[in-house]
Parts: sequence; C-alpha cells; structure tokens
Amino acid sequence: MSSAVIQEIRLEDFNAEAFIKEKADELSSTVGNGIAVNALSGGVDSSAVTMLAHKALGSKLKSFFIDTGLMREGEPQHIVALFKKMGVRVELIDARELFLGALEGITDPEEKRESITEYFYKKVFGKLVKESGAKFLLQGTNYTDVEETLAGVKRQHNILEQLGIDTQERYGYKVLEPIIQLRKRGIRELAKTLGLPEEIYKRPPFPGPALAARVIGEVTKERVATVRKATIIVEEELSKTGAFQYLAILHEDKVTGVRNGKREFGSQIEVRCWNSKDALLGAPTRIPFELLEKLGDRITEEVPGVVSVTYNIAKKPPSTIEAV
Amino acid sequence: MSSAVIQEIRLEDFNAEAFIKEKADELSSTVGNGIAVNALSGGVDSSAVTMLAHKALGSKLKSFFIDTGLMREGEPQHIVALFKKMGVRVELIDARELFLGALEGITDPEEKRESITEYFYKKVFGKLVKESGAKFLLQGTNYTDVEETLAGVKRQHNILEQLGIDTQERYGYKVLEPIIQLRKRGIRELAKTLGLPEEIYKRPPFPGPALAARVIGEVTKERVATVRKATIIVEEELSKTGAFQYLAILHEDKVTGVRNGKREFGSQIEVRCWNSKDALLGAPTRIPFELLEKLGDRITEEVPGVVSVTYNIAKKPPSTIEAV
Repeated sequence: MSSAVIQEIRLEDFNAEAFIKEKADELSSTVGNGIAVNALSGGVDSSAVTMLAHKALGSKLKSFFIDTGLMREGEPQHIVALFKKMGVRVELIDARELFLGALEGITDPEEKRESITEYFYKKVFGKLVKESGAKFLLQGTNYTDVEETLAGVKRQHNILEQLGIDTQERYGYKVLEPIIQLRKRGIRELAKTLGLPEEIYKRPPFPGPALAARVIGEVTKERVATVRKATIIVEEELSKTGAFQYLAILHEDKVTGVRNGKREFGSQIEVRCWNSKDALLGAPTRIPFELLEKLGDRITEEVPGVVSVTYNIAKKPPSTIEAV
Repeated sequence: MSSAVIQEIRLEDFNAEAFIKEKADELSSTVGNGIAVNALSGGVDSSAVTMLAHKALGSKLKSFFIDTGLMREGEPQHIVALFKKMGVRVELIDARELFLGALEGITDPEEKRESITEYFYKKVFGKLVKESGAKFLLQGTNYTDVEETLAGVKRQHNILEQLGIDTQERYGYKVLEPIIQLRKRGIRELAKTLGLPEEIYKRPPFPGPALAARVIGEVTKERVATVRKATIIVEEELSKTGAFQYLAILHEDKVTGVRNGKREFGSQIEVRCWNSKDALLGAPTRIPFELLEKLGDRITEEVPGVVSVTYNIAKKPPSTIEAV
C-alpha cells in the first residue's frame, strides 16, 4: 500500500462489523495457504490487528510477543495469557538482556529510539520472520502514523528494510496494514467489536520503545525499574480520569531533597496526563489537586530514590506527548 | 552570639516597635564610634537589617549591593534606587564577570553553592570589609537558619572564616545578627514597621546563590538569561496567589518538542509555588488550572528554547523549596 492512495475512514462513516468482514476476507484471500506473522505489544493497535488476523487466518497466523525488558510490570505474561484465554496462541520471546545491552551508554533520545527499533526489527523480529517461513507481515500502522510521517514529524519507515529484508521483490514479502485507514477512536471501536476486553480497547497509548521512552538519559535495568514502579502508581491513580494518555517520566537531572532532616540528592518523576483526540494536539488534563498531591505523596513514598514529582502544564504543541 | 543561647521570639510575643528600639540601642552602643558593614540583597532579611542598622548607625553603616550577574531582571539598580529614596546609601558593586567565570564548568549543586559563597564572601565582600576599616559585620541570620544548621540540613557557617578573616580575636572583628531570634513572618512585620515598602516586606524568599540556584547543571550567561525570563513571568502571574514562595527552575534535561510541525529538542522549565509558614515544611499551592495553563503557554511562547513546563506536586519533605 502506498500512503498516497490511503483514504481515511472517518468515525461517522465507520461500521466496525462491516469493516471486520471486509478486512478478514481481504486478509484471507491475500494470504491464501501462506503464513503471516505479527508482533503483538498489547497496545490497542497491535491487539486489534492480531485478533482480526486470527479471525481471518486461524493457525496460519504466527504472533510473537517480544519481551524487551522495557515493558510494564508483568505485562508480557499478562498479555500472552489474556490472548490465550481468547484462543489466540502468542509466543513469548525473552530478549531482555539483548535490549539492555544494546541501550548501554546511550543518552541521546534519537539514538535510543533507533537502537531499539534496530534491535527489535532487525535482530529479533526480523530473525523470527525469516525462521517462520512467512511471506506476509502484519503491521498495526494507523492513519495518524501516515499523517505524521507525511508531515515529517515521524521518520519514514520502510518496514522490510527495518527487518533487514531488502529483497522483497525477489522473495515476494508483503506488508499488510489492515487498520491504516483508522485513527485511534476507530481502532478502539474495532477492538471492542472484535471481542477484546475493556483493558485492551480502552488501553492508553504506550510508545514503541516502551519504558525506554520514559527514561531521560541512559536506560539501565535500575532506571527502568524506577520508572516502572512510578508507572504502576500513575496508571492506578489516573485510569479513572478517562484521559487519552498518562505517563511517568524519570528525569536524569538530580534535585535536592531532604529525608530524616538530612539533604538527599534524588530523582524527579514527571507525570503527564493528556486530553487529546488523536495525539496530534494535546492539553494537560485538569486533575483535582487532591489527586495531584496523592500522586506526589505516593511516588515519593513508594519509589526508592525519588524526592520530587512534577505535573506537565504545557500543551502539544510545542510539547509532545512523550518526552523522549 | 552562640547558637546555644538563642531564644526564639514567637510571633504572639513579638512587638515590632519595642524590638526596633531595643535592637537599635544595642547596635548603637556596640558599634560606638566604629563602622559596620553589610551586604544587601533586597530580600526581606537583609533589607530589614539594613534599615534597622541605618536607623541605629546612620553614616556609620556602609551597605553594599553586590551584583553577581545572577539577580533578577533590573534588580540591583532597582533595590539601590529604592533604598536611596528612603535616605539609605547603598554602594553597587559590579562583580558579574567574576561570578560567571567562577561558575564555568560546574554542574554539581553543592560545588555551585560553595563556589558562589566562596566568591561572594572571600573574594568580593571580604575584600570590601577589609578596605572599609569596619570591625562590625551585620548579618541577616534568622531563627530558621539556626534551626536548620543545628539539624544538619544547612552547613554550619563561620562567617568570618568565609570572609577569609580568621584572626578575629587579635583584630577584634565582631558579627552582629540582630534578627536571629525571628522567623520569616516576624521579619516581615519588622520590615513593615521599619517603613520598608510592601514589595520588600512581602517579597518572596530568594536563595543566596540567586538564579544560579534556579539552574540545574552549568550556569552560563545564556542559561541565566533563560531562567531570568521565566522568573519574570512566574512572579507576574503568581504574586497574586499570596503564596510563601514561587520560582522557575531551568532543567538540564532536554525534552522533545514540536514547532511548525517539526521535532525540536528543547528545554524544560519547572514552576514551584509553595504554601509554607517558615520554609521548614511546604506544600504545593493549589493554583487554578486556568492559571497553570497560562503559565505553560506564556513560558513556552515568551522564553526562547523552552518547549515544556511542569508544576511541582511534591511536598517538603522529601522535596526541598529549591531544587539546587
């Protein structure tokens, strides 16, 4: 599919049942007797694609969940178990050591994202694709991705190149992007109609580089553990706001704190909670101060080494949803 | 004076008129025909001491305002002019180049504070003291300073050692601390009774190292200029809250922003606004969200290079009022 001919399906024109039938037929006839692979992250986009492809392809779909060590607490096991309950087999790949090794010493945000992308696609997923014998790759690309790529905000991706497969013509690899005409709200409706549980179809967006995008500066096991603990608290407290997205960011700057009457240089966690329709524009959610203070208290009490907590008050633009 | 015998004068027992008379008499008889010096910063503590000593000593008081290049916009000239109007002569000392040179390459907060203290006292003020022929040094030490020093939160200071004068016994230097028994609210009442204008007696606390304490990481002319611009906005918008203290902090961490549809790595400003009685305990002021958003908008629009703004939501402890 070329982005030049992609037509958005607007929410008011979207019929989830009809969409599922049409896309499942399309996938089924395209893949035929072949095999298709995809990587599931547990986000609404890749979950919807997995479920849609499962309905269309059954055992001809091979789904992988790649544990990068950068996921939220217990997330890889939880997502795999959740799909298993719905009859979808997802293979869990442990790549934790590989990713932490790849991120060692990297502090530049762009390099960090590139390193993760490179390892994810080329070293891990690319290898799985080749070994699977599949010629069809399912991708959860959505309409906002297309728009941001065209606008130059996101880098242009050629997924096959990223996989280290640049001989698609000769070997006949094909990328399938069944939800590329939908934005987030359409995808949530699709996921619900596909029978996915509320925790999936209401799941706030989570970035590709996962918790590595929530750590400013070097990504180490310890720093990921810190932001993971803060993330649990932020998600527990802010899921009830119904906001578009909420996140905890571990800063690299050290700030002065005081514990038991003594100075302690410690870390700072920044909380962001966004009102947004499609991530293109965003405004901080007007959270009651009681809840902001509870976040400040819980994070400084429950996350070791954190002495300071802030809340984002800038809009997008000129801010962005994520800091890294 | 030794801290062991200092008795706090509690607000309910404080009579500003009687206090002024008692302390002025004490200063007058102690200094006699000698000369006393002090450094005025424009904060409520040093302003009250300057005015009290002026009433007691007249021309036997020599006051200096040392411009470190780290003050707020136009502050040195403004404070000197304000005291001149009240009949108090304050000499303005331009030490801007000296301080910026001293801070070059320093990122550690403790080293930063030490470097400023060392330059301020030994290199600049110590020299002025020696040249003045004065044997009496006036200091704005208050009761909270005494308590925090005893608790180990502040480092113990021997002011004469800091001035490079360690022969006080032989040469008879004496440190006078007329407001050491008062906390902030008593000092504000004292300042008002002394006839100082509202902008002084209601002035929010400002740290000793001035804007260098508001810059995480290296203190450069450009970075001080950035935090100075943000400080103007924060003070304009937050003075009406009547909060204990409000400040803008320039972070060293860079965060992703977006301007005109393109990615831009930029800076982050953190705003803190404290409710507190005496700086020992503090809680973030519950500012209306309209005002928080206005701060976010103004700072990202008016301060070049800033793409993100946060608001502190942690209490003291474990946070502290300032970040550096």
